[in-house]
This record gives sequence, structure tokens and C-alpha cells, in this order.
Amino acid sequence: MKVDLNCDMGESFGSYVMGQDSEMMQLITSANIACGYHAGDPQVMRNTVDLAKKYGVGIGAHPGFPDLMGFGRRVMHCTPSEIKNFVIYQLGALREFASIAGVTIQHCKPHGALFMMAMEDETIAQAMLEAIAEMGKDIIVFALNRSAVAEVGERMGIPIAKEGYADREHTASGSIVLTRTGPAIEDYTKQADRVVRMVKAGKVQAHSGEEIDLKVQTVCIHGDTPGAVNLAKAIRDSFNAAGIELTSIRNIL
Amino acid sequence: MKVDLNCDMGESFGSYVMGQDSEMMQLITSANIACGYHAGDPQVMRNTVDLAKKYGVGIGAHPGFPDLMGFGRRVMHCTPSEIKNFVIYQLGALREFASIAGVTIQHCKPHGALFMMAMEDETIAQAMLEAIAEMGKDIIVFALNRSAVAEVGERMGIPIAKEGYADREHTASGSIVLTRTGPAIEDYTKQADRVVRMVKAGKVQAHSGEEIDLKVQTVCIHGDTPGAVNLAKAIRDSFNAAGIELTSIRNIL
Amino acid sequence: MKVDLNCDMGESFGSYVMGQDSEMMQLITSANIACGYHAGDPQVMRNTVDLAKKYGVGIGAHPGFPDLMGFGRRVMHCTPSEIKNFVIYQLGALREFASIAGVTIQHCKPHGALFMMAMEDETIAQAMLEAIAEMGKDIIVFALNRSAVAEVGERMGIPIAKEGYADREHTASGSIVLTRTGPAIEDYTKQADRVVRMVKAGKVQAHSGEEIDLKVQTVCIHGDTPGAVNLAKAIRDSFNAAGIELTSIRNIL
Amino acid sequence: MKVDLNCDMGESFGSYVMGQDSEMMQLITSANIACGYHAGDPQVMRNTVDLAKKYGVGIGAHPGFPDLMGFGRRVMHCTPSEIKNFVIYQLGALREFASIAGVTIQHCKPHGALFMMAMEDETIAQAMLEAIAEMGKDIIVFALNRSAVAEVGERMGIPIAKEGYADREHTASGSIVLTRTGPAIEDYTKQADRVVRMVKAGKVQAHSGEEIDLKVQTVCIHGDTPGAVNLAKAIRDSFNAAGIELTSIRNIL
Repeated sequence: MKVDLNCDMGESFGSYVMGQDSEMMQLITSANIACGYHAGDPQVMRNTVDLAKKYGVGIGAHPGFPDLMGFGRRVMHCTPSEIKNFVIYQLGALREFASIAGVTIQHCKPHGALFMMAMEDETIAQAMLEAIAEMGKDIIVFALNRSAVAEVGERMGIPIAKEGYADREHTASGSIVLTRTGPAIEDYTKQADRVVRMVKAGKVQAHSGEEIDLKVQTVCIHGDTPGAVNLAKAIRDSFNAAGIELTSIRNIL
Repeated sequence: MKVDLNCDMGESFGSYVMGQDSEMMQLITSANIACGYHAGDPQVMRNTVDLAKKYGVGIGAHPGFPDLMGFGRRVMHCTPSEIKNFVIYQLGALREFASIAGVTIQHCKPHGALFMMAMEDETIAQAMLEAIAEMGKDIIVFALNRSAVAEVGERMGIPIAKEGYADREHTASGSIVLTRTGPAIEDYTKQADRVVRMVKAGKVQAHSGEEIDLKVQTVCIHGDTPGAVNLAKAIRDSFNAAGIELTSIRNIL
Repeated sequence: MKVDLNCDMGESFGSYVMGQDSEMMQLITSANIACGYHAGDPQVMRNTVDLAKKYGVGIGAHPGFPDLMGFGRRVMHCTPSEIKNFVIYQLGALREFASIAGVTIQHCKPHGALFMMAMEDETIAQAMLEAIAEMGKDIIVFALNRSAVAEVGERMGIPIAKEGYADREHTASGSIVLTRTGPAIEDYTKQADRVVRMVKAGKVQAHSGEEIDLKVQTVCIHGDTPGAVNLAKAIRDSFNAAGIELTSIRNIL
Repeated sequence: MKVDLNCDMGESFGSYVMGQDSEMMQLITSANIACGYHAGDPQVMRNTVDLAKKYGVGIGAHPGFPDLMGFGRRVMHCTPSEIKNFVIYQLGALREFASIAGVTIQHCKPHGALFMMAMEDETIAQAMLEAIAEMGKDIIVFALNRSAVAEVGERMGIPIAKEGYADREHTASGSIVLTRTGPAIEDYTKQADRVVRMVKAGKVQAHSGEEIDLKVQTVCIHGDTPGAVNLAKAIRDSFNAAGIELTSIRNIL
């Protein structure tokens, strides 16, 4: 039994530091690297690609809306053509840094509002996936269970990896609850056990209380969640104890 | 006898229109396409790449400083590492659009202040050229005669194309005089004859009045020069009359 | 009988030119001046304030979303607090330029998506109007007939000026149809007569064909509409012939 | 004997946090508040003005170049007119937030590269000071001893406050050494004693080793210096012990 552990990376910008990339990179197997729109800059992108390579972590693009002040979390109404070209622009820039480092782009996980909008809206999902298709269908796209991205992507023949969340609750429909302002996770072991169950049994207790089925090929943990490093360590320990092998998503799909 | 005619393209941004790209693209042989830093956006980049492909024009990157308000014309002191990564970021994004259109990046011509600084300062020239070297030494770099870029580039084994200017005067040292605010060119034929002489005889009268030697493999014309379209037409006619073949720089070097 | 004629102004940015401000400023009575978010920059703002002063045109703020690439026309989901502070930031900057020129801010007309969202959504209208209230209730706010801004503004005791459009069709509910991509207006006299009827009789034929009531204290004309200068001239002539006096909104309310 | 203690504040941006404003604001007497160009956004500006008001700290504008990625630390060549209008734009926006909070702008301290360039170059100093003069000559400008700003400002009749640095070394000419990358200050008491001597005796040991005269009306401490909070506390204790009263600059000049 194998699973991937992904985290947003490279979200610093100029003098501004976001996350604990140097520590998290040693604990994850796939990195979603910001590409200069919602976060990240060329210096940060290069350093983050190098860091991922150093620890054998799968390189992923983390494209977002052009909204640094809103950190890409604001809904923005863009045309499908704009969304497609925003994704190509960002992935192209990242691909160049990856190419120079001698690695390839393994996956793409959209960020923030672009992520949520693509999951819920077929038109946006399609626009984003057309960008991926134009760039070559070897890039794996991360998606929520029962999302527009999963549906449209499978129809288009693009490899889709189903995500579960370590630090967010799931809704009954398999989406996620945006509880960014919630308290820090206290009981890492309990959280880690929840993730193990998600991966092994494909089950999780939804926010509403009911038990839902969830296919989880990659587990997401947010680097800006308080205690993210400790949670990642707890998850690794629990996976180890449960006989679950952690490996980059390309080795799983 | 062959020569290339290049022009800055794709410098519109969002709702803002710059230049007369659809007309100029039919008259030139190499396009310097803005990459979203000093000008251009993903939509504009894609459309400009498609337009260049349609008319068989060589695709070039036109990277600049991240200064849209200053249109990349303001000197900015960046570290060599920043300059290198700015260039990679921009060229990577453009390369992806080119790749999707089924064409390749033929050349790179830096923009505005980055151009002038790279021409005059070895450290900046080196930073810019290291980016090109990392991306593969098949990208031709445009440079002024007797410039830091020409010198360092030749040392590094990067193909350099020497430029002459149709709508700027040259200094005695082969650099250019930034007379952006000057009056519109009236006598296109006279200007065109000056360019023909540059290409054929390798001679031009410098701003100071003296005659200088100038090697010209590519002729630059600015799209925002008043009368640019008419000047380009006059140059084409004069080239034709003088038996000079207009072709993309990759067919010349 | 008096009416105001307003137009968006100062929407150039750096090297990018938008509109025909120097001609339009001689034809209008109130200028909506961009404040550096969706368009405009400090140089442009200063020059536009000076130009408005020269022709005795009322100074208005034209705040928008921080989205230069989308020219403020993209819907962006911001919090009420963000919207309030965006408006204060932009109006504060403009107020300083006005103060230096010895003039005051007469009115505020939000731009693009912020305009439409404020007209339709009470929460956004309230956020925008709270900014105005905090800055002093002497700033007149432009609003569509039967809009959230008109309703909330009147409730808050903020002076509201009702708008009619010279170059857009109205919906049956008094909103406007965004026909930005439509063909240029050909028959300026016909358009001008429509505006005169709007002002005099308070009637206009809506997009759906039916006749609606419309209170019009200020007529909006867009500077980027093809033929805007000619349309403005036709409107002035028709107003003159119909005995309607053109004057800044502060002389009307 | 009185002195002011100033610190850069409000340099967070969107989701990015910079400095420890809530702690530092309780220890200083004048706050240099970023205005949205090199750092800061409307939300941050409003909150920072409110925080300064809460602790009775003098409100200052901290304008910079429009270069968020470079945090305003990159030299940018702008025209005097651009610099003047950049300063007016930023101060105008801040003045509005101050006005809403019922406080006034006490001072202006330019940021980063704009600060250093204004200190060394008369043309830039003049451009910046003309902005201040246009806004009313009641705004105190912070300047290094023997700087262009001090000279030009005194000539123009603008109140100038002379600065000494708690966490930077001074050059023999009274400028400062940009040792941003240096190690954290270990011995806060020693540093604080150096500051007390600066204030009391007007003397400091320059970077070159020699003793220089320094007039110090306001002491600057950088919020992003490691240990800034502890250094500020040590300075306050030492001032207290030495009988030096800490108070906002407007009570000193």
C-alpha cells in the first residue's frame, strides 16, 4: 500500500517568508511549487526546485490567480481562455527551472480560489485541463473526490490523483471545509490516525458527522497550518507503523 | 546578401494596446515578444506567438525588468542571480507558448533598461547570458556592436547577432542614442537608404558626425516609433532594390 | 433644466495610453479619475487633476479593484473591510493631488466590476459607502436607478446622483447592458436625442423594448467607446438645442 | 533631554507577515508606516494607524519605490517628477487613514533605496521634499546627518529630524553601513549604551574606527533586525537610567 504526501511550497515572495519549506521538504513526497502569480518569485522558484530535487521530492506546479495581495484566495472571474493561458504561463516558467535542474514536472495542483473554482465548475476545470493537455498529458492533476476536475480530467484522458486532507475536514460530498482560521491542531497522533484510516480503508468522518467514502492517492498538508511540521512527522510515523509506503505520486498512478 | 529585420512585439497588456502588431508582423522577419514583466500578458503572448507563426516570423523572447509602470525602461539594480532567474522565468513561459504552437525560440533580445545595462556592464551581460546557456546554447542573442553582451557571449560560445538601428542614431562607439522623444521620421526613403548602407557597406554616420564601422546582421525597428509601418515598408523596398534578402536571423548566422 | 455629463478619465498607465482625455475633458462637466488600482498612476493622476481644473470640470474618484491586467473588470470576491479600505486608499491618494491643485473631490464613481457589484449587492454597496461616510459625507456618489448603492446611500444620508448612459442600453430594471464589444455608434444625433429624452422626460426604451422611467442627474459616456468625442459633441449640441444646461453635479444636487 | 525612537511598521502585505508590530509599537514613539508601494496594503495601513494611535505613537509615512518583489531596496532610476508624485500618492493614502482615525501625519521617512538615494543625491532629495512642501510644511522629514535631504530640507524650510541608528553602524561621513546580513546583536546592553552616548554626547564610533560627531533627535531601530524587541527594551531601560525622556519627534523639534 502506497500513498503520496503533498504540500504547498515556494510561497515566499521577495523579502516575505511563507511556510517552513526547508523542514517540510524533508517530510513530503510531492511539492506544489508556487509559480509567481499568487506567490513565489523566480528566485524562490529556482531554490524550491533545487530543494525538492535534493530530497527526491516530486516537482509539481501550483498555479494561481494573479492576485498577490489576496494570496490567490479571492474568487476572480476570468475567461476560460485567460485561465488556460495563466496556467500555461506559470507551468512554462516552472518547467524551465525544472529542466535546468534536470528534473521534470510530475504534477499540477491549482491554488486557492482557482483550485476550488476548478473543482466546482466544469468550465473552469476544462480550461485548466486544456492547458495541461496542450503541455502534454504526462502531468498528473490533483483533484478532490467527486470534483469537476476529476470528472473532466478522466474524460480527457489526463491522469488524476485523488486527494485527502490531513488538516482540513471533508464535506459529505467529498469537498473540503475551509477552516483556515481554526485553532492549531493539538493531537497530532489522532490526526495522523484519521489520515491512516483515510488511506487504508478509504473512509473518513465528514464535517457533518456522517461517514463517507474517500479515495486517497495523495494526502495534502498545508505548510502554513500551525504545527505543520509536527503533523507531517506524526503522519509519517503512523504510515510507517501501518505499513503504508510514502512515495511520490508518479510511483502510484 | 541577407539580413534580418526585428521589432518588439506583444507589448500590449490587458486592455492596453501598444504598437501595431498585426501590420508590423507582416513586414519583419524576427519578433521580440514581451514576456509579462515589462509588458505583455499570457493572452497577448499566446496571440503574438500565433501571429508570428502565421507569417513565418522568427520567435524571440524580449525579457525585461518587473516594472510595468516604467515599461521596463527604468534602471533597476538587481543581483546577477535575480537577473538570471528573471530571464529564465520569462523565457520559460514564452517557450511553453511557442512549444504549444509548434515553434521554437529562435532568439532573445532583452528590453529597455535591461538591454542597455547588459550592453554596458559585463556582470549583467554575464548573468543574462548564463540564463541563455542554462536553457541551451541554441538561442541567438541580439547585441550592439562592441558591447559587453557581444564580448561575453562570444567568449561563452553563445551565438550573437549584431544589431543596427533603423530609427535610432548610433554613437561613435556603436551604442545607440535614446532619442525616443524626437520628432517622427519624415523621409522614410532616406532612412531606408541609411539602413541599406549599414547592411551592405557596414558603415553608418554616427550621432557625432563621424563615420563608423557597424556589422549589421539584424536591423531593429521600434513598433512605437511614429510611422513605423511606413518605415518598415520603405526598408523592405530598399532592400529589395539593393538585392538584400530579408530572412530570419537563424538563416543568417 | 440642468444635467451633468461624466466620463472616466486618467486611465492611462505608464507608457500605455487609454482614451482621449485632452479632448473629452473639454466636453464633460465631471471627470471620474482612476486612482492607480485598475488603471492610472501618480503621474497620470496629477496630470488629469490639473486638466480637469483647467476646464472647470468636477473632480471625481474612480476607484476599482487591484487588477490592472483585468482593467478592474473582473469580479473579485473581497471582504467588506477590504473594499472599504481599497476605496479609502484610492480616494485618499486622489484627494492629495486635488488638494495640491486647490480643488476638492466632488464625487465618487466606482469602476467596472466594483461598480456593478456595488449596484447589485447591498453588502458591497454598504462597504463602499462606509468609506465615503468615513471620509466626510460631502462626496456625491454616482449610482444606477433602483440600485443597492442608491438605496443604501440614501439610507445613510450620502448624496446620490442618478445616472443614465449615453452609450449603453438600460435593462428594464434600470441597470445597464454591458455591450462593450458592440459596433461603433454611427448615428450620433439619434443617440443624443435618446439622451435628451432621458433627461427631459425621464424615459428611455430599455434593451427589452419596453419603455421605462429613468431619473438622470448625470449622463455617463465612456471615453473608450469608438467615436466618444463625436458623441459627446452631439450630446452637447442637442442639450443646447433643447435648453438643457450642462453643469457639474455639485450644482445640481 | 529628549529623544524619539522610530521603527518601520506596517510592512506586512496580504497574507505575508513582516516584523513584530504589535510588540514594537508599545516600545517606540514614532512609527514609519509603509504605504502600499514597497510594502503594506490598505488593510495593513488602517490597522497600523489604529495600533499607533492606541499607544500614542507618532504617525509617519514610509514611502518607497513601487517594487514589492525587491521590498523597495532596489535602486530604481525614476524622474524627479515621478518621485514627487510617488511620495504624494503614498502620503495622501496614509493621510486619509490617519484622518479617519483622528490623527495627523507627524513625519515622513522614505524607505530603502529611496531613502539612501535621497540622502546622497540632491535632485532626488529635492523631488521628495517638494512633495512634502506641496502637502504642507508641517510634516517632519527624517534624515541622516550631513545628507542631501538635511541640506535641501533646511534650505526649503522643512523641519528635519536628524537620525542615529541603533542597529546599523555609521560611516565616518555620518551615513550608515547596510549590514543587513550581519549576525544578530547579542549584547543588547552594549548596543543600548552606544545609543545613549549617541544621544547624550553626540558621539559614536564609526565603522572605520574613528570617533565622529552625530546629532541624534530620533533613533532608528529596524523591526526585522533579529532581537529587535529585546534591543528596544534595552534602549528604553538605558534611556530611563540615563535620564533621557522618550517622546515623539513633534515634542522635540
